Amino acid sequence: MSGPTFSIVRRVAFHETDAAGIMHFSNFYRWMEVCEHEWFRALTLPMMSTTAEGIRLGWPRREASCSFMRPLRCDDEVRVTASVVAVGTTSVTFEFVFEKDRAGRWTEVARGRMTTVHVRQDSTGRMEAEPLPMPVRAALGSGAPGAS
Amino acid sequence: MSGPTFSIVRRVAFHETDAAGIMHFSNFYRWMEVCEHEWFRALTLPMMSTTAEGIRLGWPRREASCSFMRPLRCDDEVRVTASVVAVGTTSVTFEFVFEKDRAGRWTEVARGRMTTVHVRQDSTGRMEAEPLPMPVRAALGSGAPGAS
Amino acid sequence: MSGPTFSIVRRVAFHETDAAGIMHFSNFYRWMEVCEHEWFRALTLPMMSTTAEGIRLGWPRREASCSFMRPLRCDDEVRVTASVVAVGTTSVTFEFVFEKDRAGRWTEVARGRMTTVHVRQDSTGRMEAEPLPMPVRAALGSGAPGAS
Amino acid sequence: MSGPTFSIVRRVAFHETDAAGIMHFSNFYRWMEVCEHEWFRALTLPMMSTTAEGIRLGWPRREASCSFMRPLRCDDEVRVTASVVAVGTTSVTFEFVFEKDRAGRWTEVARGRMTTVHVRQDSTGRMEAEPLPMPVRAALGSGAPGAS
Repeated sequence: MSGPTFSIVRRVAFHETDAAGIMHFSNFYRWMEVCEHEWFRALTLPMMSTTAEGIRLGWPRREASCSFMRPLRCDDEVRVTASVVAVGTTSVTFEFVFEKDRAGRWTEVARGRMTTVHVRQDSTGRMEAEPLPMPVRAALGSGAPGAS
Repeated sequence: MSGPTFSIVRRVAFHETDAAGIMHFSNFYRWMEVCEHEWFRALTLPMMSTTAEGIRLGWPRREASCSFMRPLRCDDEVRVTASVVAVGTTSVTFEFVFEKDRAGRWTEVARGRMTTVHVRQDSTGRMEAEPLPMPVRAALGSGAPGAS
Repeated sequence: MSGPTFSIVRRVAFHETDAAGIMHFSNFYRWMEVCEHEWFRALTLPMMSTTAEGIRLGWPRREASCSFMRPLRCDDEVRVTASVVAVGTTSVTFEFVFEKDRAGRWTEVARGRMTTVHVRQDSTGRMEAEPLPMPVRAALGSGAPGAS
Repeated sequence: MSGPTFSIVRRVAFHETDAAGIMHFSNFYRWMEVCEHEWFRALTLPMMSTTAEGIRLGWPRREASCSFMRPLRCDDEVRVTASVVAVGTTSVTFEFVFEKDRAGRWTEVARGRMTTVHVRQDSTGRMEAEPLPMPVRAALGSGAPGAS
């Protein structure tokens, strides 16, 4: 894989498991977001901000998917690695690889994608897509703008 | 118990269970809030609002506690009944009884309390306690104002 | 769309929202599961069971995706409608349409897919795919078995 | 405060906030549990185990309470410090202090208590209180056994 990547390592908490004894699948999507936010923080890019005119800028999701290959259990130590798949005019698509520490070797357990859109939200809550900020484009992609 | 009460019935969802096979205890607090909000809705009292001057009014919690007597499992049907324990100048304290349907009889499984404060929040997010709105006082308590 | 469908209606709870003022996207996946489980319950099909030999049968997810078109806010009333996209030898793929009540008309706000696999789990927690139970196949699909 | 203490530091994640812009109060209880589990792990004490006879030992909660003084917001860095309030025959009561980093100084934002019971669970899921394991008693308290 070329291009920038970013990783976090975290442990499955008890409240993230379910009665099947494994991490509930909805939490994988939360971990993607945590990884994305940590990456933005490492780049000192804000996830939410308000302009001088009171316009709120944010990053809602347009789409997210995940494939689950092996279960995670309470206390498992997991590495999540994000990379950039596509940079559009107003959106970024990330890929996330989840790997579990099995006797010192990282083994892939899940793989997901998430498309995040840059939006402005007026005081009524109405959202409109907004071109990516230059620092985000500079940090995450060289890229010629894609389809959106 | 005298005074107004309000009940909801809901089923334990799979994502609310944990690896011990029971509803995770943190969800009892969420159900208290759901019950409280349904009660407010039934009374047509808003949980959040914004004044003409842009002041946001809300109801954060000052305190919440719960005792757990019996576990709840996936698909259990549960009744939550709220009653008013105390009405203060700026706060309301509710009690919540959780009962499980066991062969047609409701059996108590947990009991909690939650104190909700009425606050105003300015644009910087600073919160200040605010007297209860009259309709809330009228609906929930006769009561002479308590300590706060 | 031909074939069986199943719907639930539920309201966005306060604890399901986030600081952007909308339902956190991870909760859409939880609602898909709630809808699937309600459907199984309506068909009197168990989501988890244990055989006489102590083998646990369950339905973990192999894959789930969702596209988000419009935000949901606290108290929004939402209809989730499940339909069957594919029935494999050991798995079922559902589609879920999320619609919001806007002035009496249901408007699509999100659309997702989830593939659920039937597995047996031995006492060490090891999972193995297992053919769909006949009642599930009978209830959800006529279908000639698909790729898996 | 005398006796052993244990601290963790973590950041408020976006999915832990709600539409009021602050960490949802239910997550404070989850963080208490995370802190408790990290402490057990640091002491190499298991949170769940199964005996040779197939009896499952676990630590459900009997009671948990929390007082909220100041809100936490997304990205806030928070220290949670656990200490032991009481050691009973079959239970431990912890206190948890939540402090927020404000310009380099830790400021208390919340304070909670949680009583955890040691139980054995038979194959039907029935739970019975069980004396604390000696290593837990040794690690967490000198204490003469309390009321339970």
